[in-house]
Amino acid sequence: MPQKGAEGVKAFEVTATDGAARAGVLHTGHGDVPTPAFMPVGTKASVKSLHPDEVREAGAAILLGNTYHLHFRPGEDLIAELGGLHAFMGWDGPILTDSGGFQVFSLRDTLLAVDDEGVTFRSVYDGDRARLTPELVAAIQSKLGSDVAMCLDVCPPAGVPREELERAVRLTTTWAARQRDAPRGPGQLVFGITQGGVDRDLRARSVQEVTALGFDGYALGGLSVGEPRPEMVEAVEWSAPMLPADRPRYFMGIGDPDGILDVIARGIDMFDCVLPTRMGRTGTALTSHGRLNLRNARFARDLRPLDERCPCPACTRFSRAYLRHLTNQRELLGLRLLSLHNLRFLLDVTLGARSAIEDGRLADFSLEMRRRMVSEA
Amino acid sequence: MPQKGAEGVKAFEVTATDGAARAGVLHTGHGDVPTPAFMPVGTKASVKSLHPDEVREAGAAILLGNTYHLHFRPGEDLIAELGGLHAFMGWDGPILTDSGGFQVFSLRDTLLAVDDEGVTFRSVYDGDRARLTPELVAAIQSKLGSDVAMCLDVCPPAGVPREELERAVRLTTTWAARQRDAPRGPGQLVFGITQGGVDRDLRARSVQEVTALGFDGYALGGLSVGEPRPEMVEAVEWSAPMLPADRPRYFMGIGDPDGILDVIARGIDMFDCVLPTRMGRTGTALTSHGRLNLRNARFARDLRPLDERCPCPACTRFSRAYLRHLTNQRELLGLRLLSLHNLRFLLDVTLGARSAIEDGRLADFSLEMRRRMVSEA
Repeated sequence: MPQKGAEGVKAFEVTATDGAARAGVLHTGHGDVPTPAFMPVGTKASVKSLHPDEVREAGAAILLGNTYHLHFRPGEDLIAELGGLHAFMGWDGPILTDSGGFQVFSLRDTLLAVDDEGVTFRSVYDGDRARLTPELVAAIQSKLGSDVAMCLDVCPPAGVPREELERAVRLTTTWAARQRDAPRGPGQLVFGITQGGVDRDLRARSVQEVTALGFDGYALGGLSVGEPRPEMVEAVEWSAPMLPADRPRYFMGIGDPDGILDVIARGIDMFDCVLPTRMGRTGTALTSHGRLNLRNARFARDLRPLDERCPCPACTRFSRAYLRHLTNQRELLGLRLLSLHNLRFLLDVTLGARSAIEDGRLADFSLEMRRRMVSEA
Repeated sequence: MPQKGAEGVKAFEVTATDGAARAGVLHTGHGDVPTPAFMPVGTKASVKSLHPDEVREAGAAILLGNTYHLHFRPGEDLIAELGGLHAFMGWDGPILTDSGGFQVFSLRDTLLAVDDEGVTFRSVYDGDRARLTPELVAAIQSKLGSDVAMCLDVCPPAGVPREELERAVRLTTTWAARQRDAPRGPGQLVFGITQGGVDRDLRARSVQEVTALGFDGYALGGLSVGEPRPEMVEAVEWSAPMLPADRPRYFMGIGDPDGILDVIARGIDMFDCVLPTRMGRTGTALTSHGRLNLRNARFARDLRPLDERCPCPACTRFSRAYLRHLTNQRELLGLRLLSLHNLRFLLDVTLGARSAIEDGRLADFSLEMRRRMVSEA
């Protein structure tokens, strides 16, 4: 049963459209999330290297937490005992938790068996056999106390035989039906996930089956898993409109500026990616000039900020030369500042896209962003 | 020639005493430093994992930078070209730079030769032969633009034969004389270093020779290099009074709470140590209850802050349970918060000692701190 807020308002509203793109608001028990929304990934109850206040000040309205990792370390029972994930990690805004399925299926050499009831695998923490079922995944996310819980799904990589894709669709529906009927946390929204890769018929079947079950929102899963980018974008173009217009649409796992603009333009409301913090840790900055690899010697004497258009703590205080030095010397302050900058940049791109949708000028906004990123790099 | 400030005031004033302990102020071109002062170590132009604003808010009035590391990466010429060390690292407060001697002599398997003109060694960065001389060390520190430059000294570890200690004393004086006559940066203070280990006669000789040269401050070098703590404390007790009362006295390399209280009580005005950030990176918190090893299972469900007496960002926001989780998972936020807390704790101990000296109750303050750290651990 889709949730309604305390006053009976719907959990999601579309407030403006521009072509297929939508601006809206997701209402949660921990506050509103303006959409389109980029969700920074707080894998192990921490957005890597960053303080929750920094993440908030960078403009994040909602974080993603990883059920797989939190289940094993420190465990959902401990987190529940300590007051839930929000209190545990010092973040009082909305949190979406994934189901753990993506980790189980992407760490393929730890996968043991998949059946109608769930999936068996070896934990990356200790190699012990472990199992996730729709019921367990619902219980874990209920104990974590996230605002949005995701259904357990089967997520195959790109290029698998059609039978494997078909089986993923079938099991994802079976599991979604079981998870829909499992207890959820108080006020917790639950999103269904559709599979089918870039196969239009299978995706349509998955959408039809999963939406028929009735969830608070829907995700496009099984994309951005290795297929060529144009195929992915095309798949979003025809699959997003298959999803109910009155529910939030979540594209799982995209976070480069181009990709964000691509999926927003095609009607996606939410997305997440580890890219900003991962790139921060390897010395790459995302800027309105394109990507800067700070290991490049041309930055050694560069007194300019990473991005003179950016008001983040890295750009207002430190030079490219200093950030290059920190990166080369593997100083933790460097990856911290780069992570924060990258996050801010993606959040600003998303915010800019939202304003552009409200003004009916998303195409111009995207074109201008892309032109800069290519021409000034 | 000792420096005087712009208005002709002396660079250092003692404002209160309590037994051998002193409270005072060191005036520098980048502001005043209340003493006793703990100097956080910004080895490679960054206090590991911390933003300069955090270091400032934790109460640091002066940082230490490492000439050895900055000379090799990114090089003093680059830093000078970019406006000096303050601008480079975004810290506008006072900076003291060491001479590089400590690194050269403590990385003993890279040491090649020591002579009257300087020291030859292999760089830890690329294994290339490198050389430091008093003149070069003066030039490097002048280019870095530090507020206080240290003389190059020979720093042997504890337990070397008396002849080696004697040679260290002789060379340290020879080098100090050369460095005193080398050009210094505008407004830069220069401190001499005394050697002699825990040998009273050799220390007295070193103090006599180095103070006769006339510097703006004096350090006790060659202590805290492996000798038993009681011997070290005893050596400070008899050697600090040998130094001129009107110049700051710097004890090189101490940063545990007990050690800080020990040297302050014996007339030391400045000290530095990597301990707070190094411990932060290994999951140890310094608190008014003593040391907490956060890997210990007893903290798994501990909702209390690290130290309920501490107003730092870690203690006002996060539980021991969460910090334990971050530590166990090697999350960067964990070591960042622990480093910041440890720094704050040591700076607060130092500040507390300063107030106590002003009130003539340092002995009581130290006793109370120590009693707590032992009994509540």
